Amino acid sequence: MLGSMQNWPLLCTKIIDHAALLHPHRTVTTRSVEGPIHTTTYAELRSRSLRVAKRLEKHGVKYGDRVATLAWNTWRHMEVWYGLLGLGAIYHTVNPRLFHDQIVWIVNDAEDRLLFVDLTFLPVIEKYIAEMPTLEQVIVLTDAEHMPATTLPNAVPYEEWLKDADDDFAWAEFDENTAAGLCYTSGTTGHPKGVLYSHRSNVIHAFQASQMDMFGCGSRDVIMPVVPMFHANCWSLAFTAPMVGAALVMPGAKLDGASVYEMLQIGKVTLTAAVPTVWQMLLGHMEAKKLKLDHLERVVIGGAACPRAMTEKFEKVYDVRVAHAWGMTETSPLGTICSIKPETAALDIEARLDLQVKQGVPPFGVEMKITDDRNVERPRDGRAFGRLKVRGPAIAGGYFKGMGKENFGEDGFFDTGDVATIDPNGYMQITDRAKDVIKSGGEWISTIDLENLAIAHPDVLEAAVIGVAHPKWDERPLLIIVPKPGRSPTREGILAYYEDKIAKWWMPDDVVFIEEIPHTATGKIQKMTLRDRFRGYVLPTA
Amino acid sequence: MLGSMQNWPLLCTKIIDHAALLHPHRTVTTRSVEGPIHTTTYAELRSRSLRVAKRLEKHGVKYGDRVATLAWNTWRHMEVWYGLLGLGAIYHTVNPRLFHDQIVWIVNDAEDRLLFVDLTFLPVIEKYIAEMPTLEQVIVLTDAEHMPATTLPNAVPYEEWLKDADDDFAWAEFDENTAAGLCYTSGTTGHPKGVLYSHRSNVIHAFQASQMDMFGCGSRDVIMPVVPMFHANCWSLAFTAPMVGAALVMPGAKLDGASVYEMLQIGKVTLTAAVPTVWQMLLGHMEAKKLKLDHLERVVIGGAACPRAMTEKFEKVYDVRVAHAWGMTETSPLGTICSIKPETAALDIEARLDLQVKQGVPPFGVEMKITDDRNVERPRDGRAFGRLKVRGPAIAGGYFKGMGKENFGEDGFFDTGDVATIDPNGYMQITDRAKDVIKSGGEWISTIDLENLAIAHPDVLEAAVIGVAHPKWDERPLLIIVPKPGRSPTREGILAYYEDKIAKWWMPDDVVFIEEIPHTATGKIQKMTLRDRFRGYVLPTA
Repeated sequence: MLGSMQNWPLLCTKIIDHAALLHPHRTVTTRSVEGPIHTTTYAELRSRSLRVAKRLEKHGVKYGDRVATLAWNTWRHMEVWYGLLGLGAIYHTVNPRLFHDQIVWIVNDAEDRLLFVDLTFLPVIEKYIAEMPTLEQVIVLTDAEHMPATTLPNAVPYEEWLKDADDDFAWAEFDENTAAGLCYTSGTTGHPKGVLYSHRSNVIHAFQASQMDMFGCGSRDVIMPVVPMFHANCWSLAFTAPMVGAALVMPGAKLDGASVYEMLQIGKVTLTAAVPTVWQMLLGHMEAKKLKLDHLERVVIGGAACPRAMTEKFEKVYDVRVAHAWGMTETSPLGTICSIKPETAALDIEARLDLQVKQGVPPFGVEMKITDDRNVERPRDGRAFGRLKVRGPAIAGGYFKGMGKENFGEDGFFDTGDVATIDPNGYMQITDRAKDVIKSGGEWISTIDLENLAIAHPDVLEAAVIGVAHPKWDERPLLIIVPKPGRSPTREGILAYYEDKIAKWWMPDDVVFIEEIPHTATGKIQKMTLRDRFRGYVLPTA
Repeated sequence: MLGSMQNWPLLCTKIIDHAALLHPHRTVTTRSVEGPIHTTTYAELRSRSLRVAKRLEKHGVKYGDRVATLAWNTWRHMEVWYGLLGLGAIYHTVNPRLFHDQIVWIVNDAEDRLLFVDLTFLPVIEKYIAEMPTLEQVIVLTDAEHMPATTLPNAVPYEEWLKDADDDFAWAEFDENTAAGLCYTSGTTGHPKGVLYSHRSNVIHAFQASQMDMFGCGSRDVIMPVVPMFHANCWSLAFTAPMVGAALVMPGAKLDGASVYEMLQIGKVTLTAAVPTVWQMLLGHMEAKKLKLDHLERVVIGGAACPRAMTEKFEKVYDVRVAHAWGMTETSPLGTICSIKPETAALDIEARLDLQVKQGVPPFGVEMKITDDRNVERPRDGRAFGRLKVRGPAIAGGYFKGMGKENFGEDGFFDTGDVATIDPNGYMQITDRAKDVIKSGGEWISTIDLENLAIAHPDVLEAAVIGVAHPKWDERPLLIIVPKPGRSPTREGILAYYEDKIAKWWMPDDVVFIEEIPHTATGKIQKMTLRDRFRGYVLPTA
């Protein structure tokens, strides 16, 4: 028997309708790419989104079409999202930090019909355009006055393009499972894979994100997503903020410490979110200039592990609460936030900082488990670690065009590729990437833990741990170290330093010293290259 | 094109799964109907709910079956809800405050197969049972020790009944639109009508309820729903609390001031919710005994308009924040909460108390409009009033067995039967019931406003305003007054008192003095009876 409640599909456009009706004057303040600060409201943003939808329809964009954006966080970028959503078309956020080949590949794979581009990236597109034949037109997110000369045949400034439509338009209505957004995730091997968010997943995810123990945001907040709209669905903030009626501050193209600080202050931002690198720059700037934060209450830090020292500085020096978060493009992206539960509310500051190194607790709607390689669940004791798998209404169930089926189990769980522990209070901590973990005699050894310990040694500049073949244990850890300039750590000294800090069977079987560790474009250690280099290495224990 | 996100139906049982896994030791503390305080946890409650489901299945209860509860807020009542939900069966909460005829009628209309009943109501059921032929068995929510002698043929104590099942059971999975709960709403005319909540509507509603500007609750809250589980879906708290991991305190059968106060204190309750009558009793008790509240932070007041004086007392004397709320059985029930928005955050205390007389702002997912009789929308200016209509995923789209179709418009909006204003900041205020409003020359006059003014007059004990036929204006207001004992207010004195307080055309055309105003069982003025009595009344202006 079905209930007798209304059929009211969860569509993203209803979020901006709600914001425009209930919070019409709430502001969206942007550092425009052209330079000046620009302020609009949810009522105006909705009106212009309706115009975008009408203008897109005039162009011939229809339900299911993909349209690319290569753009910073601005009010115009948001208008384009909602305009597309109002037709059942799909915002495809292209990450400008990707390489040439990747950008061309994903635009072609997505078969994007239009591209909305910020001034910053126009030269890039001029170079790539010949290789992207599905693009019918490039719309430059600026006005006539700021439109530069361009080699693109029919490029048009956004504000001119938009003049051809008024806001007398009704959002299309359709199945809430209709695709809303497309975001590619690039692994270390193979082509990028597209995650295709739905209207339903975006709305449910915004509900999750707004909860007390997640972002905990309401109409009196001013939220600045420093995390770009092209990165993992902007951590939902383009939906969560208008859903709860919070004001938005958009940092535009400038993400350096001084610029972020300025926007936090002039926007009176209460809540902000970004990766650790951004906060490293902000903290550096504030320390150098002896500045303080007058309005900021909370900062959400994710995308990479947040070091304890960073949390400590925010909490102790700036009186800002840190919420360490974990998520992926495939998880919309919020999977966990390290909120304080009754079980952990009485911790003193040092113990709390230790806790906050963990990535935290999932909200309702994110099921989470850790398993061994045969999908048997591992204990939630804070010590055992296993492959992290997740399930929920805002988690990918497949990739665009059916790629990457190996990531999805028969039980509906998505294999994140991360290795993690879960403690009895439900706090999850990432301990490794599954492809990096060392499997010794059926037990797993976390390379990240060993590396973090090594770099705390006074003579060590950088460290990497990889598994090397072993006749008895299958694999054993090899510790690779780049010494600090002028220092000469020894094998024996390093191994002695590990004693009492780790379980005996975690002890690296050997230590080698090299001059440089290879990195990816985004600064991560290229373990694959190291594994290739040390493939034939014979351990003294072998 | 559809998104590629997981198919993860929004089922209520996933809420208790989440609570049991992430908040296993969070407590549910009940003043048991037998007397002593009883404490359990979400982990244990889930385990026993699984047993309930298994035991119900053993009885033969299946998907779509209705099962009645006539019970207070206790852990056992919650177990029965979740157990039924886990089969796709339907918890049908019967309001024990209804009259004999109504209870019998709705149990028969629902075709309830079983009845779970608290000790309190056993004598009632013994009297009614012969008239309720669909009931196969009555299960008394107690243990063998407390089981009284009963004339019911096969009644069994709950704890004995439950012994026949362990918790080795898997929740059924089904369409999220499956019916979850049934709650009848009794109008002043005709039979009660059943609202049939779905799993989807309950889950979405819990997401709404948990938001910052609604209940704003998280895992560190302790929530006491004084509002009964048999009243309007318990304001979602049996779902919202476990969804966010908040502890629960259940008041059981004792809702008097002293008992509620005791539970607030021993349970260290931070958030509570009930109708104004309950808070009147609590405030009276605290004043008489010179008590204060050590833990309570917020109180949600709804079900009837919350008087300004009550809000003032909570805020000024007890330092408790009041959230005035509005909703109906048909709206799951939360429609609005009077939260403080940036537009109203700077009000001084008196202006804020004035604001809090309004019922407040809807969350995302409650669309709200006011219309005239031809469904034309009226301005959101805080003055114009119209029929309040609502639309959303947790709002009824019809009644059980297709009754009451006249309440649902072609545009999908449900006509609440209330008349309200909406101000430019989105705050809604109920001004009347649609059937009571007076239509004078095409304009509407609020009877509640006129009555509230009248009872503020020192000589007036009670007042009612009804519309009386008028040859020119269709209807004009007649003011009916019960004077205070020993006082003799005059027609002229009362009308003079109204001057400058109301618009000229709202002025009652006549005043009559009577000895008693008729009331319903729940204390509301029976305007229908008054209208019958004064049907032929000739106004002096006619």
